Amino acid sequence: MRLVVVGGVAAGLSAASRARRVDRSLEIVVLEKGSRISYGACGLPYLVEGQVSSLDELTVHPPEFFERERDIRIRTGCEVKSVAHAKREVLLASGERIRYDRLVWAAGARPAASVRGERVFTLHNDRDAERLQAFLHEHQPRTASVVGGGYIGLEMATALRARGLAVTLYHDGLNLLNREEPWLTERVSARLQQCGVTLRLNTPVAAPDDLGDDFVLWTAGLKPNVEILAEAGAELGRTGALRVSEHLESSLGGVYAAGDCCEAMHRVTGRPAWIPLGTTANKMGRVAGANAAGARERFEGITGTSIVRIGGLAVAMTGLGMIQARREGFTPVEALVEARDRPKYFRGRKVAVQLVADRNSRRLLGAAICGDEGVAGRINVAATALAARMTAADFAALDLAYAPPYATVADPLLVAAQTLLKALDAR
Amino acid sequence: MRLVVVGGVAAGLSAASRARRVDRSLEIVVLEKGSRISYGACGLPYLVEGQVSSLDELTVHPPEFFERERDIRIRTGCEVKSVAHAKREVLLASGERIRYDRLVWAAGARPAASVRGERVFTLHNDRDAERLQAFLHEHQPRTASVVGGGYIGLEMATALRARGLAVTLYHDGLNLLNREEPWLTERVSARLQQCGVTLRLNTPVAAPDDLGDDFVLWTAGLKPNVEILAEAGAELGRTGALRVSEHLESSLGGVYAAGDCCEAMHRVTGRPAWIPLGTTANKMGRVAGANAAGARERFEGITGTSIVRIGGLAVAMTGLGMIQARREGFTPVEALVEARDRPKYFRGRKVAVQLVADRNSRRLLGAAICGDEGVAGRINVAATALAARMTAADFAALDLAYAPPYATVADPLLVAAQTLLKALDAR
Repeated sequence: MRLVVVGGVAAGLSAASRARRVDRSLEIVVLEKGSRISYGACGLPYLVEGQVSSLDELTVHPPEFFERERDIRIRTGCEVKSVAHAKREVLLASGERIRYDRLVWAAGARPAASVRGERVFTLHNDRDAERLQAFLHEHQPRTASVVGGGYIGLEMATALRARGLAVTLYHDGLNLLNREEPWLTERVSARLQQCGVTLRLNTPVAAPDDLGDDFVLWTAGLKPNVEILAEAGAELGRTGALRVSEHLESSLGGVYAAGDCCEAMHRVTGRPAWIPLGTTANKMGRVAGANAAGARERFEGITGTSIVRIGGLAVAMTGLGMIQARREGFTPVEALVEARDRPKYFRGRKVAVQLVADRNSRRLLGAAICGDEGVAGRINVAATALAARMTAADFAALDLAYAPPYATVADPLLVAAQTLLKALDAR
Repeated sequence: MRLVVVGGVAAGLSAASRARRVDRSLEIVVLEKGSRISYGACGLPYLVEGQVSSLDELTVHPPEFFERERDIRIRTGCEVKSVAHAKREVLLASGERIRYDRLVWAAGARPAASVRGERVFTLHNDRDAERLQAFLHEHQPRTASVVGGGYIGLEMATALRARGLAVTLYHDGLNLLNREEPWLTERVSARLQQCGVTLRLNTPVAAPDDLGDDFVLWTAGLKPNVEILAEAGAELGRTGALRVSEHLESSLGGVYAAGDCCEAMHRVTGRPAWIPLGTTANKMGRVAGANAAGARERFEGITGTSIVRIGGLAVAMTGLGMIQARREGFTPVEALVEARDRPKYFRGRKVAVQLVADRNSRRLLGAAICGDEGVAGRINVAATALAARMTAADFAALDLAYAPPYATVADPLLVAAQTLLKALDAR
């Protein structure tokens, strides 16, 4: 039995490693288009910022580790051209054909627009990062245009600013971070301004070359890498990413998918969603790999939990925002409070907490939190509550830890929950 | 209708405030034995440490606030001598009788041993803190004995050490922090040693005067203040604290109880427990106050979540430890892992996470975490999972936030959950 895994970053390597633990005798081959595997792509902005000194520092394990410790064959520089599922064959760009019994498709995503130009950059993979680093080093640019107001755009705008560049950030929508929450956009905008980043909201960019800065970093939009598998007959979901079962099998029997190329069940809406994130890729990879090796595990789904740092401000979210909740058919009610994360005498700082619940079921639907400290832990509490389908009252009854160096006796989460209960009771 | 509340700190004032919101016409009187109300007792060690400059800084609201904003009468210096429930009367030490229709008993707890002496101190309330502060100022002691290895003992040992005193900490048991977890005691002991505190475990102290240091701070043991209400006929639970219904009514109709004087339902064991903590007192106070004013709310119970800082080390726990779980009739299985709270390139530091689950139901029973950073948020995730009665698999499937400045792609909690799953599957 041979398992072929397409993709050697987060989902692919989780799948391969897990498959090995499930079946010691399986032949496992990982095909990676690039020259490097197993690197933490989420660390790329910090390479540019200077926090990370080299790509090697972002590499979790070298190929030899997988070969030696896990008996997994790693083949870099292998671009897949097509899949002939009837013959159980993968065709490489080199012309080589590789037979499989089981396939895990973990081909990730790519920038949605194909923007090109000597001074136009993306930051999606290791090659992108190397190219940008080389450019920054060689040309010592003084000004940069960053296009896209998602995670990478915001991280990179502040990272380049921290390197001393004049940065303008262009975003085509009215709200940042893929969350239609004006209050969040306001706070992020204020922090960008403090950092000296010029923000142009509601400003689509058609021709990056016309922006006039020394270079352009294009971070707007991602597309799942589904075309090859779709051509082979795999179904896509309504999001445009690969449709998978709860066991992460695609519509092609024996072909599993994981990570940024496919949908995942959203635990709040109960419907498939496409929210490409590294944490999800790792977890899906494990399940896809286990099942491809003969196990029968279920992927429990996601709540879409994320966090990003923007000039020292932590912005985190999970579940649904107000507008998204309405679109999904809920009748959302919100509470938005500001409360100190610790007592004043421990230099406590204000954290803003938004909780969203459904008026009818009183179930918690989502949360967004921003502040300089104490944000990550709190969003995870909300994510846990979403996974457990807690109501606002369940959430308000949580027994959270308190000691003056770490929290206030009424945690900002619980203050928000009390406000939410009042909002639910009001008409 | 008159509501009398006995106790003017955490539970009592929450009860009075909530009662006012439920019933605008109720007459509400709070009787406080001491001269100060509404202060954060958990901040007292930080007063001694110097982080807090005065008791006033620990006061949440002055009496006038309650009188003016909430129409709640505050009477300090009122010690209750007895309760004549048949007559619905409270008798004060002054001889005054106060009639009530409803009573909330929020009389708190007190040091278990009555240790006395010119150079023997406790740190249970504002008077204790003032007395200790005056002594430290006047006598400039060079050495201190601290008796008791619970929260206050540990916080105070390091606080006094930080003031330059030579400190010896005596504890009668083998394990610190009321948790029979040798690994936790080891880590705390190591940190105490680093701080220069001499630790004597398994060393009961009979006569504090014989310890030979310049003074003794006695923090060992607490007792709920139940005697007066018990004499009036209220039942006690097996823990020795007041027994209350899920609506926090005592066995005397119309008499509610909240906070350190009474039991609370433990959500993991399903049995009443006595774990006196300020967060619990506040939450119970709210429910007791609402119900005393005519509402019918349920107190959801506790998971016993706490955190303490010991020389910079955060030590947190929730639910049951291994030995406690066994005593409660479970067949506990544990995972104890060490993992970085952030990537190395963000100066990530090791956090130790212990998860305990039941072998039969695979339900999560408890967690303990210690490390220098990222502990509070993580223990709250575990506390939320306990409240939701999650299994180890549920916990491992949580969608937690990741970005390099805040977490690793596989959070220490999830690393521990994976190890726990393996331990549950092993025989």
